[in-house]
Amino acid sequence: WEGEFFPGIPTIKYEGPTSKNPLSFKWYNAQEEILGKKMKDWMRFSVAFWHTFRGSGADPFGSATKNWPWEDGTNSLAMAKRRMRANFEFIKKLGVDLWCFHDRDIAPDAETLEETNKNLDEVVALAKKLQGTKIHPLWGTSQLFLHPRYMHGAATSSEVGVYAYAAAQVKKAMEATHYLGGENYVFWGGREGYQTLLNTDMERELDHMARFLEAAVAYKKKIGFNGTLLIEPKPQEPTKHQYDWDAATSANFLRKYGLIDEFKLNIECNHATLSGHSCHHELETARINGLLGNIDANTGDPQVGWDTDQFLTDISEATMVMLSVVRNDGSLTDLVRKRYQSFDTEIGTKIEAGKADFEMLEKKAMEWGEPKVPSAKQELAEMIFQSAL
Amino acid sequence: WEGEFFPGIPTIKYEGPTSKNPLSFKWYNAQEEILGKKMKDWMRFSVAFWHTFRGSGADPFGSATKNWPWEDGTNSLAMAKRRMRANFEFIKKLGVDLWCFHDRDIAPDAETLEETNKNLDEVVALAKKLQGTKIHPLWGTSQLFLHPRYMHGAATSSEVGVYAYAAAQVKKAMEATHYLGGENYVFWGGREGYQTLLNTDMERELDHMARFLEAAVAYKKKIGFNGTLLIEPKPQEPTKHQYDWDAATSANFLRKYGLIDEFKLNIECNHATLSGHSCHHELETARINGLLGNIDANTGDPQVGWDTDQFLTDISEATMVMLSVVRNDGSLTDLVRKRYQSFDTEIGTKIEAGKADFEMLEKKAMEWGEPKVPSAKQELAEMIFQSAL
Amino acid sequence: WEGEFFPGIPTIKYEGPTSKNPLSFKWYNAQEEILGKKMKDWMRFSVAFWHTFRGSGADPFGSATKNWPWEDGTNSLAMAKRRMRANFEFIKKLGVDLWCFHDRDIAPDAETLEETNKNLDEVVALAKKLQGTKIHPLWGTSQLFLHPRYMHGAATSSEVGVYAYAAAQVKKAMEATHYLGGENYVFWGGREGYQTLLNTDMERELDHMARFLEAAVAYKKKIGFNGTLLIEPKPQEPTKHQYDWDAATSANFLRKYGLIDEFKLNIECNHATLSGHSCHHELETARINGLLGNIDANTGDPQVGWDTDQFLTDISEATMVMLSVVRNDGSLTDLVRKRYQSFDTEIGTKIEAGKADFEMLEKKAMEWGEPKVPSAKQELAEMIFQSAL
Amino acid sequence: WEGEFFPGIPTIKYEGPTSKNPLSFKWYNAQEEILGKKMKDWMRFSVAFWHTFRGSGADPFGSATKNWPWEDGTNSLAMAKRRMRANFEFIKKLGVDLWCFHDRDIAPDAETLEETNKNLDEVVALAKKLQGTKIHPLWGTSQLFLHPRYMHGAATSSEVGVYAYAAAQVKKAMEATHYLGGENYVFWGGREGYQTLLNTDMERELDHMARFLEAAVAYKKKIGFNGTLLIEPKPQEPTKHQYDWDAATSANFLRKYGLIDEFKLNIECNHATLSGHSCHHELETARINGLLGNIDANTGDPQVGWDTDQFLTDISEATMVMLSVVRNDGSLTDLVRKRYQSFDTEIGTKIEAGKADFEMLEKKAMEWGEPKVPSAKQELAEMIFQSAL
Repeated sequence: WEGEFFPGIPTIKYEGPTSKNPLSFKWYNAQEEILGKKMKDWMRFSVAFWHTFRGSGADPFGSATKNWPWEDGTNSLAMAKRRMRANFEFIKKLGVDLWCFHDRDIAPDAETLEETNKNLDEVVALAKKLQGTKIHPLWGTSQLFLHPRYMHGAATSSEVGVYAYAAAQVKKAMEATHYLGGENYVFWGGREGYQTLLNTDMERELDHMARFLEAAVAYKKKIGFNGTLLIEPKPQEPTKHQYDWDAATSANFLRKYGLIDEFKLNIECNHATLSGHSCHHELETARINGLLGNIDANTGDPQVGWDTDQFLTDISEATMVMLSVVRNDGSLTDLVRKRYQSFDTEIGTKIEAGKADFEMLEKKAMEWGEPKVPSAKQELAEMIFQSAL
Repeated sequence: WEGEFFPGIPTIKYEGPTSKNPLSFKWYNAQEEILGKKMKDWMRFSVAFWHTFRGSGADPFGSATKNWPWEDGTNSLAMAKRRMRANFEFIKKLGVDLWCFHDRDIAPDAETLEETNKNLDEVVALAKKLQGTKIHPLWGTSQLFLHPRYMHGAATSSEVGVYAYAAAQVKKAMEATHYLGGENYVFWGGREGYQTLLNTDMERELDHMARFLEAAVAYKKKIGFNGTLLIEPKPQEPTKHQYDWDAATSANFLRKYGLIDEFKLNIECNHATLSGHSCHHELETARINGLLGNIDANTGDPQVGWDTDQFLTDISEATMVMLSVVRNDGSLTDLVRKRYQSFDTEIGTKIEAGKADFEMLEKKAMEWGEPKVPSAKQELAEMIFQSAL
Repeated sequence: WEGEFFPGIPTIKYEGPTSKNPLSFKWYNAQEEILGKKMKDWMRFSVAFWHTFRGSGADPFGSATKNWPWEDGTNSLAMAKRRMRANFEFIKKLGVDLWCFHDRDIAPDAETLEETNKNLDEVVALAKKLQGTKIHPLWGTSQLFLHPRYMHGAATSSEVGVYAYAAAQVKKAMEATHYLGGENYVFWGGREGYQTLLNTDMERELDHMARFLEAAVAYKKKIGFNGTLLIEPKPQEPTKHQYDWDAATSANFLRKYGLIDEFKLNIECNHATLSGHSCHHELETARINGLLGNIDANTGDPQVGWDTDQFLTDISEATMVMLSVVRNDGSLTDLVRKRYQSFDTEIGTKIEAGKADFEMLEKKAMEWGEPKVPSAKQELAEMIFQSAL
Repeated sequence: WEGEFFPGIPTIKYEGPTSKNPLSFKWYNAQEEILGKKMKDWMRFSVAFWHTFRGSGADPFGSATKNWPWEDGTNSLAMAKRRMRANFEFIKKLGVDLWCFHDRDIAPDAETLEETNKNLDEVVALAKKLQGTKIHPLWGTSQLFLHPRYMHGAATSSEVGVYAYAAAQVKKAMEATHYLGGENYVFWGGREGYQTLLNTDMERELDHMARFLEAAVAYKKKIGFNGTLLIEPKPQEPTKHQYDWDAATSANFLRKYGLIDEFKLNIECNHATLSGHSCHHELETARINGLLGNIDANTGDPQVGWDTDQFLTDISEATMVMLSVVRNDGSLTDLVRKRYQSFDTEIGTKIEAGKADFEMLEKKAMEWGEPKVPSAKQELAEMIFQSAL
């Protein structure tokens, strides 16, 4: 494949909200400063290699519908390299400087693990060259779900051979991420879960998962990789029930096994809604637990029970997501602060300091009589929010 | 009200599976021994005062449909005492020896907290007398949701006066539970949650909830109450999102605030399914985290998005619930044990002991080549389970 | 109660999008013309008496939290009249000219149906006077769900006495609606459904419902009421499964019983989402079936399984609703028209006229070879839509 | 491939409920008579070719895990014939006499439609031979979803060329089904629906679907195929919203376009639950509308939002399904009949005959006073049902 992969597509520019050009930024102006920070630093867009270059448009009832002209129908090493060149042309034309990848999406499986690793090395070396000085991975990860060996899980497989294989794969993918200057390494446990509890020893599987992650932490330190390790919660799909169900479940796991200081979370909006929460809730739960590491700001369909992984085009939802990132003073913050002002008192301060026992409180309750309870002003808060869009 | 409340209804007896009498036990034979324990000790049925005597059959679109002949339309102290007598006639005719209650369901609110407490004292004294030597509460709790003062929560209300009132109420209810010989004290945070995050400081509210529970623990110890404190998770309803969403969320909260050793969980099946899990999953999650305290083995409707709190009549579901209680050897346990046998090896043992690092595992993975992955035998497990019903 | 009900609240005015006054219209400017029609005629806002004056803020776990100062705690006729005066002050201050009501919400139940009817007559006479010449009901309806007699349904109750009572109630409410100049009469079958099919003869119940609606049509004609009869679909709540599940289910019912020309639908957005559809889908389904009669443009919470009946504050959703009302040429319409242009051909026209049989089509398919299938441009459509907000 | 496909697996026999052999029938005894009919005639089990022989165990995140030894990795004609022989060995060893198929699952796609049809002819000829005199298809159908040409639908594609291609494919598949002695022909509109209404002309698409089905009816009659045409409702997946959402939606469509007498429904339990109904509800809805044609008695997972298409192993659910097939007198039927007995009266009969107008009913309502409303005995009905398992 010679020449450009996307001929006729120039670098995408900021053209402002009135532009009718679909291939332009209407609001995102990378260098513009907002609250003392450039927009590109508030919103660190990263190109996901698998969605962009390996997504085929297939679904459980349909075969591939997306056919790039440079694909030759094989999963050869040569094809992998060609795709990687397309990837960097895409990244540059988009004007971003971050990308992310799974090991098996960028390089093909071979007969043995040794040869597979060699494939990965070759593609990673090319990527390193193409990255230049400005581009690097937001994160790398290993694909521990597509190959049939992972049908019952990777770290939580009932087969010890699979556990070992997964460990070897993560080891290598972590090395590659480190070599490419990646900022984070992600664990998405798509197959770490069960189809039915009737055939599953959930406790033993969770113990295995903890051992696996401990070994990952140890290896990270050994090779001097300073990036953050991220867990990406998802409630289900492909399994009936995944172990990293949501932010709180993942936090509990990390606390139970003493891993809370070694990991953060990668919150994906569509995973949030599948688990019965709003994306905003999951982001806030991660933040409150000191675990907000990264955001996959996609969207799903509220009437559909699987991950549609769509672009987040709804401006209300997108703004809601940014609320957990940008903390800014304004009429909404003000409304919230005022709601709790009765705790900004002597007794409130005692309560918050853990110095108000039930007897003291009972005395107060009797002294005060029936408390007055004002409105929480939900509609007003919604109106302030929508007016700001 | 003189005489019997349920005239013509005798004590309910075990009559065996062929009985056509709807008011008989078909399978439950209290004194029969199963696996070395009496059925009454495996299944500790407890009469819930509120469902049985305060449930009116109303719903959000309909007024009361259930009218006991002894009710006079008031919520007077005399009425409360009459109801308590009905309660004990019911318990005795059912042949069980446990009951449970909310403070405000057994005794009426009055103008002031002092008078309300006096009302409670009178009813509790009567209950104590009626209990005799055989009957006692499985648990007591306080109703921190019905009164309008709790519209924004109790321990997580934005109003400090409400926090104090709730503390005083729990203090009193805990004393009553202790006095009646209760085995547990339950916290169901029906209003501890939010309607919208736009007007909510979730972090501050969770801190308040932790302070409240710490004070409850301190008070429990102070009065020498040795019962277990239980948290009852529920994802939502009445609030849009409750803080004790599910077992894992509750466990994370308890761990974060250092309360994990002071509480256990009260798992309700219908709450489990509303949170997107099976009841079996929630029970196992509680068990694995060392938090399985009590079970509310009700059922809901799989197509309905609210708590219907129905009797668990489905025998498959009921058996599934007992799986987390009764650990017994059999063909299912056997099937599960065999699935994981590759970890009952030298390398498996090392992994489970945290002594297998990524380099050792990589070496093994290369040595072993592609792992063999057998079927997980889901259909066989389901067949074994259904055959046992 | 003397004087104003809402003292200090002036008539609500249009103040434009930059106004910070929460009690002002930011976008709605009643007299402004859009596409040749005044905004007030595009958006015919109507005050719902029950939400505004009878909604108590109670929920299944909490008692009333909303206490109007003019309420005296009774459901007396005097109270009903006072409320009606508050209603018209509210309507006038809001600057709208439509309202809607349930019979039992505006006037109290009495001991007998005759006296209840007399109560209704008195309140209706007052409302007629207060309406003046500018205000009238968008619709009236009867409350066939709150009273315990309707616990198993009204037209579909298993009790013939309830069926008769409901008929009498609808007869009277229809007369009242007619007298007040109402434009529509609504049937919301909140209790027409079942809790379990095990105790239900669904076929017989549906036959009864059809008989009931036939009788309503006959009576409407007899009294010369020219308003539209509307069915308001809802999937469930209060029942486990309602008969008017969604627009398509209601349409099927109307077709089966030959009632399709006598009714239209009142689509409520929150009911739509509870039935698994978007509001836009339900509106389009109603429109395509010639049944779009009225819109209850509320909203719900996507993570909650019951009707929260909130104000529709989200601007994307609100715009989507208006798409079924306002048909306007623009880039989106254009995109859709172009998608189907291959049917604007000779063979396409034959297909659409029902003149293309399988043999003719097979010949074409063989002649044409593999068809080319272009992208459906979903993201572009979403971008056009969001840009227009 | 020589010899047996399933060596060592004998014909499956009835061995009774106590058998521990997983490859035996525990309750199904084909020749045993129940209520005057053989079990094989009550439960007409049919082998689905695609699940059994083309299901690969892949899912959206995983590649194939099920590898039959006779598969050579190709989709050649020779492979198709080999599979067909495996199919009939399987059917015979199972002891059933029905099977069902998609055109493209039994024979491979070729370059042109003509050649593809030739492939189908060859495989169908072999199947005809292998069927012998005892075996025949319960139904045939065409696969109008897997090939990328159907990405926007088949009969409802925006491309006329796709419509024509689909017509040609159904024509051929209907001929094959007729030739093999099939009893039914099924339409499952997996791609007949939309991803977003923003780019969709739903009305025009539904018109096209009706035209397509009209042409199918005409062709069926032309070739003398007397089998039943079946529509299989499914709410979504692969599309965001399918047109044949559920039984009532399909019935409305058939009524609207005058096709109600030409089609029946094929109810699939997992599709039922995805649409928010119980399977029992969908079966009853089909039955009441005179549309109960066939049952796909599978099951799904109540906590999962996609079609898992599992074997129905739960005995309560399985029995519930049979309730719509077997109408038998018993205590449950009796309970239901008694509930409605107030309609078995003079006035009830008038109502059911459409001879009771609102005035007559009002008179009755006033004469009778407040109706008495007995319990619906839900728990008793559930107890009767569970006791019968």
